[in-house]
Amino acid sequence: MSARVLREGRARLWLEPEDRGLAYGDGVFETLLVHRGQPVWWQEHWQRLVRGAARLGLPLPDENEVRHECMALLAETRGRGVLKIILTRGIGGRGYAPPADALPTVVLSTHPAPPAPRAGGLQLRWARTTLAVQPALAGIKHLNRLEQVLARAEWNDPEVDEALMCDGEDRVVSAVAANLFVLLGGRWLTPSVERCGVAGIAREWLLANVPGAAVAELNAAEISRADALFLCNSVRGILPVRRLGMREWPRDDAVAPLRASLAAAQPAFGDGEH
Amino acid sequence: MSARVLREGRARLWLEPEDRGLAYGDGVFETLLVHRGQPVWWQEHWQRLVRGAARLGLPLPDENEVRHECMALLAETRGRGVLKIILTRGIGGRGYAPPADALPTVVLSTHPAPPAPRAGGLQLRWARTTLAVQPALAGIKHLNRLEQVLARAEWNDPEVDEALMCDGEDRVVSAVAANLFVLLGGRWLTPSVERCGVAGIAREWLLANVPGAAVAELNAAEISRADALFLCNSVRGILPVRRLGMREWPRDDAVAPLRASLAAAQPAFGDGEH
Repeated sequence: MSARVLREGRARLWLEPEDRGLAYGDGVFETLLVHRGQPVWWQEHWQRLVRGAARLGLPLPDENEVRHECMALLAETRGRGVLKIILTRGIGGRGYAPPADALPTVVLSTHPAPPAPRAGGLQLRWARTTLAVQPALAGIKHLNRLEQVLARAEWNDPEVDEALMCDGEDRVVSAVAANLFVLLGGRWLTPSVERCGVAGIAREWLLANVPGAAVAELNAAEISRADALFLCNSVRGILPVRRLGMREWPRDDAVAPLRASLAAAQPAFGDGEH
Repeated sequence: MSARVLREGRARLWLEPEDRGLAYGDGVFETLLVHRGQPVWWQEHWQRLVRGAARLGLPLPDENEVRHECMALLAETRGRGVLKIILTRGIGGRGYAPPADALPTVVLSTHPAPPAPRAGGLQLRWARTTLAVQPALAGIKHLNRLEQVLARAEWNDPEVDEALMCDGEDRVVSAVAANLFVLLGGRWLTPSVERCGVAGIAREWLLANVPGAAVAELNAAEISRADALFLCNSVRGILPVRRLGMREWPRDDAVAPLRASLAAAQPAFGDGEH
Protein backbone atom coordinates (compact mmCIF):
# COMPACT_ATOMS: atom_id res chain seq x y z
CA MET A 1 0.00 0.00 0.00
CA SER A 2 1.10 3.55 -0.81
CA ALA A 3 -0.48 6.70 0.53
CA ARG A 4 -0.30 10.46 0.02
CA VAL A 5 -1.84 13.26 2.05
CA LEU A 6 -2.64 16.42 0.08
CA ARG A 7 -3.05 19.68 1.99
CA GLU A 8 -2.57 23.27 0.91
CA GLY A 9 -1.00 22.24 -2.36
CA ARG A 10 1.57 19.87 -0.87
CA ALA A 11 1.77 16.07 -0.91
CA ARG A 12 3.01 14.35 2.24
CA LEU A 13 3.19 10.86 3.71
CA TRP A 14 1.49 11.61 7.03
CA LEU A 15 -1.61 13.18 8.51
CA GLU A 16 -1.77 15.93 11.11
CA PRO A 17 -3.30 14.46 14.29
CA GLU A 18 -5.73 17.39 14.62
CA ASP A 19 -7.48 16.58 11.33
CA ARG A 20 -11.27 16.60 11.69
CA GLY A 21 -11.44 13.40 9.67
CA LEU A 22 -9.95 11.66 12.71
CA ALA A 23 -11.66 13.75 15.39
CA TYR A 24 -15.23 13.41 14.11
CA GLY A 25 -15.22 11.36 10.92
CA ASP A 26 -15.85 14.75 9.32
CA GLY A 27 -15.43 13.76 5.69
CA VAL A 28 -16.34 11.43 2.85
CA PHE A 29 -14.54 8.75 0.84
CA GLU A 30 -14.55 6.87 -2.44
CA THR A 31 -13.11 3.47 -3.28
CA LEU A 32 -12.32 2.98 -6.98
CA LEU A 33 -11.41 -0.07 -8.95
CA VAL A 34 -8.16 0.40 -10.88
CA HIS A 35 -7.98 -1.51 -14.15
CA ARG A 36 -4.92 -1.48 -16.39
CA GLY A 37 -3.61 1.40 -14.30
CA GLN A 38 -6.74 3.55 -14.77
CA PRO A 39 -9.41 4.38 -12.18
CA VAL A 40 -12.81 3.03 -13.26
CA TRP A 41 -15.91 5.29 -13.10
CA TRP A 42 -13.79 8.31 -12.09
CA GLN A 43 -16.49 10.82 -13.02
CA GLU A 44 -19.19 8.95 -11.15
CA HIS A 45 -17.03 8.67 -8.03
CA TRP A 46 -15.96 12.28 -8.19
CA GLN A 47 -19.56 13.42 -8.58
CA ARG A 48 -20.63 11.42 -5.55
CA LEU A 49 -17.72 12.87 -3.58
CA VAL A 50 -18.93 16.34 -4.57
CA ARG A 51 -22.51 15.52 -3.53
CA GLY A 52 -21.31 14.19 -0.18
CA ALA A 53 -19.13 17.26 0.36
CA ALA A 54 -22.08 19.52 -0.45
CA ARG A 55 -24.31 17.71 2.04
CA LEU A 56 -21.71 18.13 4.81
CA GLY A 57 -20.57 21.58 3.71
CA LEU A 58 -16.98 20.39 3.15
CA PRO A 59 -14.51 22.49 1.18
CA LEU A 60 -13.71 20.91 -2.20
CA PRO A 61 -10.24 20.26 -3.59
CA ASP A 62 -9.44 20.85 -7.25
CA GLU A 63 -10.42 17.77 -9.25
CA ASN A 64 -7.53 18.01 -11.69
CA GLU A 65 -5.01 18.31 -8.90
CA VAL A 66 -6.42 15.26 -7.11
CA ARG A 67 -6.58 13.26 -10.32
CA HIS A 68 -3.00 14.20 -11.14
CA GLU A 69 -1.82 12.93 -7.74
CA CYS A 70 -3.89 9.76 -8.14
CA MET A 71 -2.25 9.00 -11.46
CA ALA A 72 1.19 9.63 -9.97
CA LEU A 73 0.39 7.18 -7.17
CA LEU A 74 -1.02 4.61 -9.60
CA ALA A 75 2.11 4.78 -11.73
CA GLU A 76 3.77 2.85 -8.89
CA THR A 77 1.11 0.14 -8.90
CA ARG A 78 0.39 -0.83 -12.49
CA GLY A 79 -2.35 -3.24 -13.37
CA ARG A 80 -5.36 -4.04 -11.23
CA GLY A 81 -5.97 -2.67 -7.76
CA VAL A 82 -7.97 -0.30 -5.64
CA LEU A 83 -7.63 3.45 -5.16
CA LYS A 84 -9.14 5.07 -2.10
CA ILE A 85 -9.79 8.81 -1.84
CA ILE A 86 -10.66 10.36 1.53
CA LEU A 87 -11.75 14.02 1.72
CA THR A 88 -11.95 15.70 5.13
CA ARG A 89 -12.78 19.17 6.44
CA GLY A 90 -9.11 19.53 7.30
CA ILE A 91 -7.67 21.00 10.47
CA GLY A 92 -9.93 22.55 13.06
CA GLY A 93 -9.30 23.14 16.75
CA ARG A 94 -11.33 21.37 19.40
CA GLY A 95 -15.10 21.71 19.05
CA TYR A 96 -17.75 20.58 16.59
CA ALA A 97 -18.23 23.96 14.89
CA PRO A 98 -16.84 23.72 11.34
CA PRO A 99 -14.15 26.38 10.81
CA ALA A 100 -15.33 29.02 8.37
CA ASP A 101 -12.00 28.94 6.54
CA ALA A 102 -11.53 25.16 6.41
CA LEU A 103 -9.05 23.85 3.83
CA PRO A 104 -9.61 20.29 2.63
CA THR A 105 -7.37 17.36 3.38
CA VAL A 106 -7.24 14.63 0.73
CA VAL A 107 -5.79 11.22 1.57
CA LEU A 108 -5.04 8.92 -1.36
CA SER A 109 -4.04 5.30 -1.00
CA THR A 110 -3.63 2.28 -3.23
CA HIS A 111 -4.48 -1.27 -2.25
CA PRO A 112 -4.37 -4.75 -3.79
CA ALA A 113 -7.27 -5.85 -5.95
CA PRO A 114 -9.89 -7.81 -4.02
CA PRO A 115 -9.75 -11.60 -4.33
CA ALA A 116 -11.90 -13.27 -6.99
CA PRO A 117 -15.43 -13.90 -5.69
CA ARG A 118 -16.32 -17.35 -4.41
CA ALA A 119 -17.02 -19.75 -7.28
CA GLY A 120 -20.70 -20.64 -7.35
CA GLY A 121 -21.84 -17.48 -5.58
CA LEU A 122 -21.48 -15.65 -2.29
CA GLN A 123 -22.56 -17.06 1.06
CA LEU A 124 -24.35 -14.50 3.23
CA ARG A 125 -25.70 -14.19 6.75
CA TRP A 126 -27.94 -11.67 8.46
CA ALA A 127 -26.16 -9.03 10.54
CA ARG A 128 -27.43 -8.41 14.07
CA THR A 129 -26.12 -4.84 13.95
CA THR A 130 -28.73 -2.54 12.44
CA LEU A 131 -28.29 0.66 10.47
CA ALA A 132 -29.68 3.71 12.27
CA VAL A 133 -32.23 5.79 10.38
CA GLN A 134 -30.56 9.15 9.66
CA PRO A 135 -31.79 10.88 6.47
CA ALA A 136 -29.26 13.70 6.92
CA LEU A 137 -26.40 11.25 6.29
CA ALA A 138 -28.12 8.60 4.15
CA GLY A 139 -26.88 7.95 0.63
CA ILE A 140 -23.49 9.64 0.94
CA LYS A 141 -20.26 7.78 1.64
CA HIS A 142 -19.20 9.57 4.82
CA LEU A 143 -16.50 8.51 7.27
CA ASN A 144 -18.82 7.55 10.16
CA ARG A 145 -18.67 3.80 9.59
CA LEU A 146 -18.80 2.19 13.03
CA GLU A 147 -22.02 0.38 12.16
CA GLN A 148 -20.24 -1.37 9.29
CA VAL A 149 -17.24 -2.17 11.50
CA LEU A 150 -19.51 -3.71 14.17
CA ALA A 151 -21.48 -5.68 11.58
CA ARG A 152 -18.32 -7.02 9.92
CA ALA A 153 -16.90 -7.95 13.33
CA GLU A 154 -19.86 -10.28 13.94
CA TRP A 155 -18.26 -13.16 12.05
CA ASN A 156 -14.87 -14.52 11.11
CA ASP A 157 -16.05 -17.75 9.53
CA PRO A 158 -14.24 -17.78 6.16
CA GLU A 159 -17.27 -19.55 4.67
CA VAL A 160 -19.31 -16.35 5.13
CA ASP A 161 -18.60 -13.65 2.56
CA GLU A 162 -20.96 -10.85 3.53
CA ALA A 163 -23.95 -9.99 5.71
CA LEU A 164 -27.23 -8.26 4.99
CA MET A 165 -28.19 -5.37 7.25
CA CYS A 166 -31.63 -4.04 8.21
CA ASP A 167 -32.46 -0.63 9.59
CA GLY A 168 -33.90 -0.18 13.06
CA GLU A 169 -37.39 -0.57 11.58
CA ASP A 170 -36.82 -4.01 9.97
CA ARG A 171 -36.35 -2.81 6.41
CA VAL A 172 -33.50 -4.51 4.56
CA VAL A 173 -30.94 -1.91 3.41
CA SER A 174 -27.77 -3.46 1.96
CA ALA A 175 -24.82 -5.70 2.67
CA VAL A 176 -22.02 -4.37 4.88
CA ALA A 177 -19.89 -3.21 1.93
CA ALA A 178 -22.18 -3.64 -1.07
CA ASN A 179 -25.66 -2.85 -2.30
CA LEU A 180 -28.30 -5.53 -2.79
CA PHE A 181 -30.59 -6.40 -5.69
CA VAL A 182 -33.29 -9.07 -5.52
CA LEU A 183 -35.39 -10.58 -8.30
CA LEU A 184 -39.05 -10.54 -7.25
CA GLY A 185 -41.98 -10.93 -9.60
CA GLY A 186 -39.68 -10.71 -12.60
CA ARG A 187 -38.14 -7.35 -11.59
CA TRP A 188 -34.82 -6.46 -10.04
CA LEU A 189 -35.44 -4.45 -6.87
CA THR A 190 -33.02 -2.67 -4.54
CA PRO A 191 -33.74 -1.01 -1.18
CA SER A 192 -33.98 2.74 -0.81
CA VAL A 193 -30.95 4.59 0.57
CA GLU A 194 -32.89 7.66 1.69
CA ARG A 195 -33.05 6.69 5.37
CA CYS A 196 -29.68 4.94 5.66
CA GLY A 197 -27.17 3.12 3.47
CA VAL A 198 -24.96 4.28 0.63
CA ALA A 199 -25.98 5.12 -2.94
CA GLY A 200 -23.45 2.85 -4.61
CA ILE A 201 -22.04 3.68 -8.04
CA ALA A 202 -22.73 0.17 -9.37
CA ARG A 203 -26.26 0.35 -7.91
CA GLU A 204 -26.84 3.64 -9.75
CA TRP A 205 -25.55 2.13 -12.98
CA LEU A 206 -27.87 -0.85 -12.63
CA LEU A 207 -30.92 1.28 -11.80
CA ALA A 208 -30.23 3.34 -14.92
CA ASN A 209 -29.43 0.43 -17.26
CA VAL A 210 -31.40 -2.65 -16.26
CA PRO A 211 -34.94 -2.61 -17.70
CA GLY A 212 -37.52 -2.60 -14.93
CA ALA A 213 -34.97 -2.21 -12.11
CA ALA A 214 -36.48 -0.15 -9.31
CA VAL A 215 -36.18 0.96 -5.69
CA ALA A 216 -38.53 -0.84 -3.30
CA GLU A 217 -39.15 -1.36 0.38
CA LEU A 218 -38.11 -4.91 1.25
CA ASN A 219 -38.24 -6.98 4.43
CA ALA A 220 -36.28 -10.11 5.35
CA ALA A 221 -39.12 -12.47 4.35
CA GLU A 222 -39.25 -10.95 0.87
CA ILE A 223 -35.50 -11.34 0.45
CA SER A 224 -35.68 -14.99 1.42
CA ARG A 225 -38.36 -15.78 -1.14
CA ALA A 226 -36.71 -13.85 -3.99
CA ASP A 227 -35.93 -15.76 -7.19
CA ALA A 228 -32.33 -14.52 -7.20
CA LEU A 229 -30.05 -12.13 -5.31
CA PHE A 230 -26.84 -10.33 -6.06
CA LEU A 231 -24.61 -7.83 -4.34
CA CYS A 232 -22.81 -5.07 -6.18
CA ASN A 233 -20.22 -2.41 -5.63
CA SER A 234 -17.94 -0.37 -7.80
CA VAL A 235 -14.83 -2.38 -6.97
CA ARG A 236 -16.22 -5.91 -7.41
CA GLY A 237 -19.04 -5.35 -9.87
CA ILE A 238 -21.95 -7.81 -9.69
CA LEU A 239 -21.61 -10.71 -7.24
CA PRO A 240 -24.28 -13.44 -7.45
CA VAL A 241 -25.47 -14.84 -4.12
CA ARG A 242 -25.74 -18.57 -3.57
CA ARG A 243 -26.75 -18.79 0.05
CA LEU A 244 -28.36 -16.59 2.72
CA GLY A 245 -28.57 -18.28 6.08
CA MET A 246 -30.46 -21.55 5.42
CA ARG A 247 -31.84 -20.47 2.04
CA GLU A 248 -29.92 -21.56 -1.04
CA TRP A 249 -30.30 -20.45 -4.61
CA PRO A 250 -29.10 -22.81 -7.32
CA ARG A 251 -26.75 -21.42 -9.90
CA ASP A 252 -28.91 -18.77 -11.41
CA ASP A 253 -29.01 -17.66 -15.01
CA ALA A 254 -30.90 -14.45 -14.23
CA VAL A 255 -27.77 -12.58 -13.15
CA ALA A 256 -25.62 -13.52 -16.14
CA PRO A 257 -27.16 -11.02 -18.60
CA LEU A 258 -26.65 -8.20 -16.10
CA ARG A 259 -23.00 -9.13 -15.69
CA ALA A 260 -22.64 -9.19 -19.47
CA SER A 261 -24.24 -5.75 -19.81
CA LEU A 262 -21.98 -4.32 -17.13
CA ALA A 263 -18.89 -5.85 -18.74
CA ALA A 264 -19.92 -4.40 -22.11
CA ALA A 265 -20.18 -0.94 -20.56
CA GLN A 266 -17.08 -1.32 -18.35
CA PRO A 267 -14.55 -3.88 -19.60
CA ALA A 268 -12.92 -3.81 -16.17
CA PHE A 269 -15.82 -5.98 -14.98
CA GLY A 270 -15.45 -8.62 -17.70
CA ASP A 271 -15.09 -12.26 -16.67
CA GLY A 272 -11.52 -13.27 -16.22
CA GLU A 273 -10.57 -9.75 -15.12
CA HIS A 274 -10.42 -10.61 -11.44
CA MET B 1 -2.01 23.27 20.73
CA SER B 2 0.41 20.38 21.18
CA ALA B 3 -0.18 16.81 20.07
CA ARG B 4 1.46 13.40 20.39
CA VAL B 5 0.63 10.17 18.63
CA LEU B 6 1.46 6.99 20.60
CA ARG B 7 1.86 3.74 18.70
CA GLU B 8 3.81 0.60 19.51
CA GLY B 9 5.58 2.26 22.40
CA ARG B 10 6.73 5.32 20.47
CA ALA B 11 5.55 8.94 20.62
CA ARG B 12 5.38 10.88 17.34
CA LEU B 13 3.97 14.13 16.02
CA TRP B 14 1.97 12.70 13.12
CA LEU B 15 -0.60 10.06 12.27
CA GLU B 16 -0.31 7.33 9.66
CA PRO B 17 -2.90 8.01 6.95
CA GLU B 18 -4.14 4.40 7.02
CA ASP B 19 -5.31 4.66 10.65
CA ARG B 20 -8.82 3.26 11.11
CA GLY B 21 -9.69 6.26 13.24
CA LEU B 22 -9.61 8.28 10.03
CA ALA B 23 -10.98 5.63 7.70
CA TYR B 24 -14.08 4.70 9.72
CA GLY B 25 -14.12 6.75 12.92
CA ASP B 26 -13.13 3.42 14.48
CA GLY B 27 -12.33 4.66 17.97
CA VAL B 28 -13.38 6.60 21.04
CA PHE B 29 -12.27 9.81 22.72
CA GLU B 30 -12.26 11.72 25.99
CA THR B 31 -11.99 15.43 26.64
CA LEU B 32 -10.68 16.32 30.10
CA LEU B 33 -10.51 19.59 31.96
CA VAL B 34 -6.98 20.39 33.12
CA HIS B 35 -6.80 22.38 36.36
CA ARG B 36 -3.52 23.52 37.90
CA GLY B 37 -1.75 21.23 35.47
CA GLN B 38 -3.72 18.12 36.49
CA PRO B 39 -6.41 16.27 34.50
CA VAL B 40 -9.74 16.36 36.33
CA TRP B 41 -11.78 13.13 36.76
CA TRP B 42 -8.99 11.03 35.20
CA GLN B 43 -10.32 7.75 36.60
CA GLU B 44 -13.87 8.44 35.40
CA HIS B 45 -12.67 9.37 31.91
CA TRP B 46 -10.37 6.38 31.70
CA GLN B 47 -13.14 4.04 32.81
CA ARG B 48 -15.48 5.43 30.15
CA LEU B 49 -12.73 5.02 27.53
CA VAL B 50 -12.37 1.39 28.63
CA ARG B 51 -16.15 0.83 28.43
CA GLY B 52 -16.26 2.36 24.93
CA ALA B 53 -13.28 0.26 23.83
CA ALA B 54 -14.96 -2.88 25.16
CA ARG B 55 -18.17 -2.08 23.28
CA LEU B 56 -16.27 -1.65 20.01
CA GLY B 57 -13.75 -4.42 20.68
CA LEU B 58 -10.81 -1.99 20.51
CA PRO B 59 -7.37 -2.98 21.82
CA LEU B 60 -6.50 -1.07 25.02
CA PRO B 61 -3.28 0.81 25.63
CA ASP B 62 -1.57 0.71 29.02
CA GLU B 63 -3.13 3.30 31.31
CA ASN B 64 0.11 4.21 33.06
CA GLU B 65 1.90 4.74 29.78
CA VAL B 66 -0.86 7.01 28.47
CA ARG B 67 -1.05 8.94 31.71
CA HIS B 68 2.71 9.39 31.72
CA GLU B 69 2.62 10.85 28.20
CA CYS B 70 -0.32 13.07 29.16
CA MET B 71 1.60 14.50 32.08
CA ALA B 72 4.63 15.11 29.85
CA LEU B 73 2.42 16.99 27.40
CA LEU B 74 0.73 18.97 30.17
CA ALA B 75 4.08 20.03 31.57
CA GLU B 76 4.30 22.34 28.54
CA THR B 77 0.91 23.89 29.22
CA ARG B 78 0.68 24.67 32.92
CA GLY B 79 -2.48 25.98 34.48
CA ARG B 80 -5.97 25.56 33.05
CA GLY B 81 -6.76 23.92 29.74
CA VAL B 82 -8.20 20.90 28.01
CA LEU B 83 -6.62 17.50 27.30
CA LYS B 84 -8.07 15.33 24.58
CA ILE B 85 -7.37 11.60 24.31
CA ILE B 86 -8.32 9.70 21.16
CA LEU B 87 -8.03 5.90 21.05
CA THR B 88 -8.35 4.11 17.69
CA ARG B 89 -8.14 0.53 16.46
CA GLY B 90 -4.86 1.49 14.81
CA ILE B 91 -3.70 0.50 11.36
CA GLY B 92 -5.74 -1.86 9.25
CA GLY B 93 -5.76 -2.35 5.50
CA ARG B 94 -8.81 -1.51 3.41
CA GLY B 95 -12.02 -3.17 4.55
CA TYR B 96 -14.30 -2.97 7.57
CA ALA B 97 -13.15 -6.24 9.18
CA PRO B 98 -11.22 -5.37 12.35
CA PRO B 99 -7.71 -6.86 12.18
CA ALA B 100 -7.30 -9.67 14.72
CA ASP B 101 -3.92 -8.30 15.78
CA ALA B 102 -4.82 -4.61 15.97
CA LEU B 103 -2.49 -2.40 18.01
CA PRO B 104 -4.04 0.76 19.44
CA THR B 105 -3.22 4.29 18.34
CA VAL B 106 -3.52 6.99 21.01
CA VAL B 107 -3.61 10.65 20.02
CA LEU B 108 -3.13 13.18 22.82
CA SER B 109 -3.61 16.89 22.39
CA THR B 110 -3.83 19.94 24.61
CA HIS B 111 -6.10 22.92 23.98
CA PRO B 112 -6.91 26.24 25.62
CA ALA B 113 -9.49 26.31 28.40
CA PRO B 114 -12.97 27.13 27.14
CA PRO B 115 -14.15 30.73 27.57
CA ALA B 116 -16.14 31.61 30.69
CA PRO B 117 -19.85 30.88 30.20
CA ARG B 118 -22.19 33.72 29.30
CA ALA B 119 -23.06 35.82 32.34
CA GLY B 120 -26.73 35.34 33.24
CA GLY B 121 -26.98 31.90 31.62
CA LEU B 122 -26.71 30.18 28.26
CA GLN B 123 -28.91 30.97 25.27
CA LEU B 124 -30.08 27.85 23.44
CA ARG B 125 -31.93 26.93 20.27
CA TRP B 126 -33.45 23.72 18.99
CA ALA B 127 -31.33 21.81 16.47
CA ARG B 128 -33.03 20.64 13.27
CA THR B 129 -30.52 17.79 12.96
CA THR B 130 -31.72 14.77 14.90
CA LEU B 131 -29.75 12.02 16.59
CA ALA B 132 -30.30 8.60 15.02
CA VAL B 133 -31.45 5.82 17.33
CA GLN B 134 -28.57 3.32 17.54
CA PRO B 135 -28.40 1.40 20.83
CA ALA B 136 -25.17 -0.33 19.74
CA LEU B 137 -23.32 3.01 19.84
CA ALA B 138 -25.37 4.94 22.40
CA GLY B 139 -23.73 6.14 25.60
CA ILE B 140 -20.10 5.77 24.50
CA LYS B 141 -17.99 8.64 23.20
CA HIS B 142 -17.07 7.23 19.80
CA LEU B 143 -15.52 9.08 16.88
CA ASN B 144 -18.60 9.03 14.58
CA ARG B 145 -19.69 12.60 15.27
CA LEU B 146 -21.14 13.93 12.01
CA GLU B 147 -24.53 14.48 13.62
CA GLN B 148 -22.93 16.86 16.11
CA VAL B 149 -20.97 18.60 13.34
CA LEU B 150 -24.15 19.11 11.29
CA ALA B 151 -26.10 20.35 14.31
CA ARG B 152 -23.36 22.79 15.30
CA ALA B 153 -23.13 24.04 11.71
CA GLU B 154 -26.80 25.12 11.84
CA TRP B 155 -25.96 28.46 13.47
CA ASN B 156 -23.16 30.98 13.69
CA ASP B 157 -25.07 33.61 15.65
CA PRO B 158 -22.71 34.44 18.54
CA GLU B 159 -25.78 35.05 20.72
CA VAL B 160 -26.58 31.33 20.58
CA ASP B 161 -24.42 29.17 22.82
CA GLU B 162 -25.77 25.68 22.27
CA ALA B 163 -28.63 23.70 20.74
CA LEU B 164 -30.83 20.94 22.09
CA MET B 165 -31.14 17.81 19.97
CA CYS B 166 -33.99 15.30 19.71
CA ASP B 167 -33.82 11.76 18.40
CA GLY B 168 -35.71 10.68 15.30
CA GLU B 169 -38.70 9.84 17.52
CA ASP B 170 -39.07 13.32 19.12
CA ARG B 171 -37.45 12.51 22.43
CA VAL B 172 -35.07 15.20 23.70
CA VAL B 173 -31.57 13.75 24.16
CA SER B 174 -28.94 16.39 24.95
CA ALA B 175 -27.23 19.53 23.73
CA VAL B 176 -24.67 19.20 20.92
CA ALA B 177 -21.69 19.01 23.29
CA ALA B 178 -23.27 18.71 26.73
CA ASN B 179 -25.88 16.76 28.64
CA LEU B 180 -29.14 18.34 29.80
CA PHE B 181 -30.91 18.44 33.15
CA VAL B 182 -34.36 19.96 33.68
CA LEU B 183 -36.22 20.72 36.91
CA LEU B 184 -39.74 19.31 36.68
CA GLY B 185 -42.06 18.69 39.62
CA GLY B 186 -39.24 19.45 42.02
CA ARG B 187 -36.85 16.83 40.58
CA TRP B 188 -33.85 17.13 38.32
CA LEU B 189 -34.38 14.92 35.28
CA THR B 190 -32.02 14.04 32.41
CA PRO B 191 -32.80 12.09 29.21
CA SER B 192 -31.74 8.49 28.74
CA VAL B 193 -28.62 7.80 26.67
CA GLU B 194 -29.52 4.19 25.87
CA ARG B 195 -30.80 4.89 22.35
CA CYS B 196 -28.43 7.73 21.42
CA GLY B 197 -26.34 10.42 23.09
CA VAL B 198 -23.30 10.25 25.34
CA ALA B 199 -23.17 9.24 29.01
CA GLY B 200 -21.32 12.35 30.18
CA ILE B 201 -19.01 12.20 33.18
CA ALA B 202 -20.61 15.29 34.78
CA ARG B 203 -24.06 13.79 34.12
CA GLU B 204 -23.03 10.59 35.90
CA TRP B 205 -21.70 12.59 38.83
CA LEU B 206 -24.96 14.53 39.11
CA LEU B 207 -27.13 11.40 38.87
CA ALA B 208 -25.10 9.86 41.69
CA ASN B 209 -24.91 12.94 43.91
CA VAL B 210 -28.03 15.08 43.50
CA PRO B 211 -30.91 13.82 45.65
CA GLY B 212 -33.85 12.76 43.49
CA ALA B 213 -32.00 13.21 40.19
CA ALA B 214 -33.24 10.63 37.68
CA VAL B 215 -33.33 9.56 34.06
CA ALA B 216 -36.63 10.30 32.31
CA GLU B 217 -38.17 10.40 28.86
CA LEU B 218 -38.70 14.07 27.94
CA ASN B 219 -40.23 15.80 24.95
CA ALA B 220 -39.79 19.39 23.77
CA ALA B 221 -42.99 20.60 25.43
CA GLU B 222 -41.84 19.29 28.80
CA ILE B 223 -38.48 21.01 28.43
CA SER B 224 -40.17 24.32 27.66
CA ARG B 225 -42.34 24.19 30.77
CA ALA B 226 -39.53 23.10 33.11
CA ASP B 227 -38.81 25.30 36.13
CA ALA B 228 -35.10 25.43 35.33
CA LEU B 229 -32.57 23.95 32.89
CA PHE B 230 -28.86 23.46 32.87
CA LEU B 231 -26.29 21.85 30.61
CA CYS B 232 -23.27 20.01 31.91
CA ASN B 233 -20.08 18.44 30.71
CA SER B 234 -16.80 17.45 32.26
CA VAL B 235 -14.90 20.42 30.85
CA ARG B 236 -17.32 23.21 31.73
CA GLY B 237 -19.17 21.77 34.71
CA ILE B 238 -22.74 23.02 35.27
CA LEU B 239 -23.98 25.74 32.91
CA PRO B 240 -27.35 27.33 33.79
CA VAL B 241 -29.64 28.07 30.86
CA ARG B 242 -31.33 31.43 30.54
CA ARG B 243 -33.12 31.11 27.23
CA LEU B 244 -34.37 28.37 24.88
CA GLY B 245 -35.90 29.76 21.70
CA MET B 246 -38.64 32.14 22.90
CA ARG B 247 -38.78 30.77 26.44
CA GLU B 248 -36.77 32.61 29.09
CA TRP B 249 -35.94 31.59 32.63
CA PRO B 250 -35.14 34.33 35.12
CA ARG B 251 -31.92 33.98 37.07
CA ASP B 252 -32.62 30.81 38.90
CA ASP B 253 -31.53 29.88 42.37
CA ALA B 254 -32.26 26.18 41.88
CA VAL B 255 -28.97 25.53 40.08
CA ALA B 256 -26.72 27.30 42.58
CA PRO B 257 -26.69 24.52 45.21
CA LEU B 258 -25.74 21.97 42.56
CA ARG B 259 -22.86 24.12 41.42
CA ALA B 260 -21.75 24.46 45.02
CA SER B 261 -21.88 20.68 45.54
CA LEU B 262 -19.90 20.06 42.39
CA ALA B 263 -17.31 22.67 43.36
CA ALA B 264 -17.00 21.10 46.80
CA ALA B 265 -16.32 17.71 45.19
CA GLN B 266 -14.12 19.07 42.39
CA PRO B 267 -12.47 22.43 43.20
CA ALA B 268 -11.70 22.81 39.47
CA PHE B 269 -15.37 23.75 39.03
CA GLY B 270 -15.39 26.44 41.70
CA ASP B 271 -16.59 29.93 40.79
CA GLY B 272 -13.80 32.12 39.60
CA GLU B 273 -11.93 29.15 38.19
CA HIS B 274 -12.87 29.88 34.59
